[in-house]
Amino acid sequence: MSPERHRIALFGSGRIGQVHARNIAAHPGLELAVIADPFLEGASKLAAETETVAVGSPEEAFDMEGLDGVVIGSPTNTHVQLIEASIERGLAVLCEKPIDLDLATVRECRDRISGASVPIMLGFNRRFDPGFASVRQRVEAGDIGALEQLTIVSRDPEPAPRGYLSASGGIFRDMTIHDLDMARFFVPDIVEVTAHGSNQFSEDIRELGDYDTAVVTLRGSRGELITITNSRHCVFGYDQRLEAFGSGGMLSVGNVTADSVRAYGASGTEQASLYQHFFLERYNAAYRAELDAFATSIRTGAAPSPGFQDGMAALVLADAATESAASGKSVDVQGAW
Amino acid sequence: MSPERHRIALFGSGRIGQVHARNIAAHPGLELAVIADPFLEGASKLAAETETVAVGSPEEAFDMEGLDGVVIGSPTNTHVQLIEASIERGLAVLCEKPIDLDLATVRECRDRISGASVPIMLGFNRRFDPGFASVRQRVEAGDIGALEQLTIVSRDPEPAPRGYLSASGGIFRDMTIHDLDMARFFVPDIVEVTAHGSNQFSEDIRELGDYDTAVVTLRGSRGELITITNSRHCVFGYDQRLEAFGSGGMLSVGNVTADSVRAYGASGTEQASLYQHFFLERYNAAYRAELDAFATSIRTGAAPSPGFQDGMAALVLADAATESAASGKSVDVQGAW
Amino acid sequence: MSPERHRIALFGSGRIGQVHARNIAAHPGLELAVIADPFLEGASKLAAETETVAVGSPEEAFDMEGLDGVVIGSPTNTHVQLIEASIERGLAVLCEKPIDLDLATVRECRDRISGASVPIMLGFNRRFDPGFASVRQRVEAGDIGALEQLTIVSRDPEPAPRGYLSASGGIFRDMTIHDLDMARFFVPDIVEVTAHGSNQFSEDIRELGDYDTAVVTLRGSRGELITITNSRHCVFGYDQRLEAFGSGGMLSVGNVTADSVRAYGASGTEQASLYQHFFLERYNAAYRAELDAFATSIRTGAAPSPGFQDGMAALVLADAATESAASGKSVDVQGAW
Amino acid sequence: MSPERHRIALFGSGRIGQVHARNIAAHPGLELAVIADPFLEGASKLAAETETVAVGSPEEAFDMEGLDGVVIGSPTNTHVQLIEASIERGLAVLCEKPIDLDLATVRECRDRISGASVPIMLGFNRRFDPGFASVRQRVEAGDIGALEQLTIVSRDPEPAPRGYLSASGGIFRDMTIHDLDMARFFVPDIVEVTAHGSNQFSEDIRELGDYDTAVVTLRGSRGELITITNSRHCVFGYDQRLEAFGSGGMLSVGNVTADSVRAYGASGTEQASLYQHFFLERYNAAYRAELDAFATSIRTGAAPSPGFQDGMAALVLADAATESAASGKSVDVQGAW
Repeated sequence: MSPERHRIALFGSGRIGQVHARNIAAHPGLELAVIADPFLEGASKLAAETETVAVGSPEEAFDMEGLDGVVIGSPTNTHVQLIEASIERGLAVLCEKPIDLDLATVRECRDRISGASVPIMLGFNRRFDPGFASVRQRVEAGDIGALEQLTIVSRDPEPAPRGYLSASGGIFRDMTIHDLDMARFFVPDIVEVTAHGSNQFSEDIRELGDYDTAVVTLRGSRGELITITNSRHCVFGYDQRLEAFGSGGMLSVGNVTADSVRAYGASGTEQASLYQHFFLERYNAAYRAELDAFATSIRTGAAPSPGFQDGMAALVLADAATESAASGKSVDVQGAW
Repeated sequence: MSPERHRIALFGSGRIGQVHARNIAAHPGLELAVIADPFLEGASKLAAETETVAVGSPEEAFDMEGLDGVVIGSPTNTHVQLIEASIERGLAVLCEKPIDLDLATVRECRDRISGASVPIMLGFNRRFDPGFASVRQRVEAGDIGALEQLTIVSRDPEPAPRGYLSASGGIFRDMTIHDLDMARFFVPDIVEVTAHGSNQFSEDIRELGDYDTAVVTLRGSRGELITITNSRHCVFGYDQRLEAFGSGGMLSVGNVTADSVRAYGASGTEQASLYQHFFLERYNAAYRAELDAFATSIRTGAAPSPGFQDGMAALVLADAATESAASGKSVDVQGAW
Repeated sequence: MSPERHRIALFGSGRIGQVHARNIAAHPGLELAVIADPFLEGASKLAAETETVAVGSPEEAFDMEGLDGVVIGSPTNTHVQLIEASIERGLAVLCEKPIDLDLATVRECRDRISGASVPIMLGFNRRFDPGFASVRQRVEAGDIGALEQLTIVSRDPEPAPRGYLSASGGIFRDMTIHDLDMARFFVPDIVEVTAHGSNQFSEDIRELGDYDTAVVTLRGSRGELITITNSRHCVFGYDQRLEAFGSGGMLSVGNVTADSVRAYGASGTEQASLYQHFFLERYNAAYRAELDAFATSIRTGAAPSPGFQDGMAALVLADAATESAASGKSVDVQGAW
Repeated sequence: MSPERHRIALFGSGRIGQVHARNIAAHPGLELAVIADPFLEGASKLAAETETVAVGSPEEAFDMEGLDGVVIGSPTNTHVQLIEASIERGLAVLCEKPIDLDLATVRECRDRISGASVPIMLGFNRRFDPGFASVRQRVEAGDIGALEQLTIVSRDPEPAPRGYLSASGGIFRDMTIHDLDMARFFVPDIVEVTAHGSNQFSEDIRELGDYDTAVVTLRGSRGELITITNSRHCVFGYDQRLEAFGSGGMLSVGNVTADSVRAYGASGTEQASLYQHFFLERYNAAYRAELDAFATSIRTGAAPSPGFQDGMAALVLADAATESAASGKSVDVQGAW
């Protein structure tokens, strides 16, 4: 290992922790110093694969020598505490979304860390997807003139297990939040939120008082209209699309298949393969690019994007969507963050 | 001419009147008996082309011998009167949308014609587009399981002239009304309407107190969520798309180009031609199929679809959208028709 | 009928005759004066539909008053005689391909009609397809720089009946001839022909000593390389594609579906409908445009394109392909016409 | 490093050597023991990056302890010697194509190594591309019925430098050879080769007596017809496509873009990004899968595919194509290997 590699502690060895562990291990500028998870068995297995050590508590992880940053992929209710503990120790932070399910808690956290000088980055991975990133850049460059409408379709292949869903904070805070951040990636200044939820297929989700299907309409400060269409299931794969429509044209991001094969037969033509199944496949490159941006922030000290404020803003929108879906009224979010 | 052709009087020789005139003239089961328009010059020119006669008043048209039906393509404010006059004379009616801009007027008309036995058909031409019709049929056949979400994108290439717009009743009654009917084509029983309007590019439209950009969310009685995205301009052509998403899959209708050419060069690949410019091109086949359905109704006496009730329902939804966009609240439309 | 319509006699009331009859009847500048076919029953039925008269012999047709031109859609072995008889009478000619299956006969015909001043047009309808015509025009305009390669794929949905095939002159003269003309549409000066035939699926065709599958490679005088891929069957519809590749890019013509529907399900995504089944659907617009070009030639007296010489050239190439497929050697066709 | 990793010596640190070095270093079952290249500076730089050692001669590489296999990415004229030296030492071999430019040399090599029991694999990477591999598998599974035609288009983005080209053996042995192997991947038993070359744009290539543009037609033993279309340049990226056409349908492999973005504007719609520029990007996954197949062969001792015989067969076809392009005659290659 070359000495200039930044040493990273990883919290969490679950599905997303595994993604980060492998990416950190493979990154030329980073070194995976330790993986912490109270479920030590999982942490140890992942540590063996990525040639590092596993510990059972955050304290043991923070005790590791020469740490430069942390990646937080542990359960949501540990995020605030780990963010604050990391910042206290002067460690750069990459934290999975959401910061917390409770906006008041997030605001208190913000106040406590307000003077921090280390980079704090939020894990809105989709901003780093080659497609979304390219369209954002081209929109900024004026390729479609003034941005007038944004259409986001986002469907998971199937619902998460009931146990996960019951602690998720509801579809808007758990799933839509990614799309709300994507909306803010293009239109940072959202002034109004209107949301609709529906129960179309899952008895489990209905019993939890949550929705399996949702539509959100956002208005930007220049009158831009944004729609988000969500479903918790989709038989043809992970449906992740966006259209940015403007005065001079449109740019779209389509779904991704594992190969470029098309089939032609007696029942139809040009049939493509199924879309990549879920976020691990679809956003594989995005997670690597996200980590690379984090490494750059550590190295340069520059403020990362998306940052803590973006995480809070997305939560404000998710809360407003939850309220709007219940009340049937649009929610004004001007100055709400 | 064979004697069994049904004789049709056409009201209106404008853009849409011309479409109908040519289609009636070319239809093997119909005969264009007369074209009526106070702007007699236009009517005469069209009559010469379609080998029929032109008159300047409805009365003269109704005086023609052996009429079987009428096609009403005159200005909106003449529709109710012409519908009633035609029905009085026992003539089948194909009337362009909307029936009227005022819902109360439409309801009074409905009451007056309630006992009529002749076919009354509304000109929601898109229901007859090969793409939309095929998807509707496949959804009905269960190809995508239960229909859960419907996503409609509908953009005009450019705004109509200010004179037209000022009498149009606003974007929801003039433009969105087609999409509202398309929503009802798939989900007849709509229970809630939420709408947002915005002024993104047209100073003319802003001055008229109208929107150039809109988004509408509808909820069906089974919880189906429907979004409609509208714009009064679109540089790449007439943008007319639909996605029907269900528990077992999705069916989409895409835009149509005039040819199947793709271009590949140093700045990009697979570039298709512009989409067909506007409704005359895009719905050419739909207008012919619509007329054919009307001819069938005349011949068989069967109730046409879409009928008067569909025209009224679309107006109810357009009114609700107008109200919702102004109030910021969802409008309950259960039992509103 | 307006007096300035050019009066056309149609020979043949079979599949292609029906296409022409309907198009002539619907053309504003043409009048279908008579349909001639020894199979008088078919001719009469078609005449009733298109509101003209039927006769059983060419002589009776030529006797019609005020003829301006003829459309020849009768069997191949009648073409030369009808061309010559029409020219003698000063009538413009639109003749279906091929002029004749025997090149010597074609050359004699050419010599006999060499002084004729009336327009003689060959029915290579594909040149008038919106896609092929557009690509040709863009290639001429320099959109892809110098044209270097042309890739033509052309597959029929299923073989013609054995009776038709046995008199067809073989796949190169009957089917490939359209693609050979398409090649000449882009690269008029072909210098070398290499062909391969194969029997892949049809016992009937094998017994006739013909091929059901073929590949032809042509070389243009500037070294352009052209490939034609043919099959007499194709389960997914009429496969009609072209790619023009040049120093600065590529233009392609794709297949055409009846609608713009795509299906997404558990076994695949983006499945389009079957391609339009055969030439009557696929080249519907092309036949109308072809007829329109013929009408223009009659009106202006300008030489039509494609002309007699193009019909002869395509036959020269088809003969060379037949020879090459048998000999395994490339055939030099420089100066062969 | 875990002890069960197979130790690999890599010959060559050029463009392809770098691909293999990184893939070997990242492979969980392989260990990059040494990189050998007389150009020691390049080897050292690559060795530093991949955390191994560099040597200047094959002998030093073979002296490394505990080698299990070699990957040969050095210049073509060293292949035979390195293959034989490796086999003598009982090392498994993965050798880049071609084995040699001279078929007699290849045959002598074959005779000398005929008793070898170690795996010998040829680097026809495209067989491992997800798209080509999937189509091959589906064709084998009968998805398109009997395979009748294969259409391969293969264009490089730009010509290699003159120095490279002058030693390349000509377009058929250097470039087409990959397509010839792809043809054999689907139709192993080729009986006839016909080829055409042309000089369309490169004065350099013309001066070298080589072609910049080529078309090859192959015939399989069951009459399958295969066409290969090649160009040494292509402004829109690396053009790598295949269509497998059969009695029951068709499967195609299309080009690959770096993202799924489409652009719509006033000059066209649905424009995709440029295709991935060249083989390093396009076949990135294929090189990794190829290496994985090699690792499996080492572990299991199973004969790898493609093997030495496949490398020889492709060269036989390339030689035949070279001969056919010169003579204008088809070349019979039955029993030629």
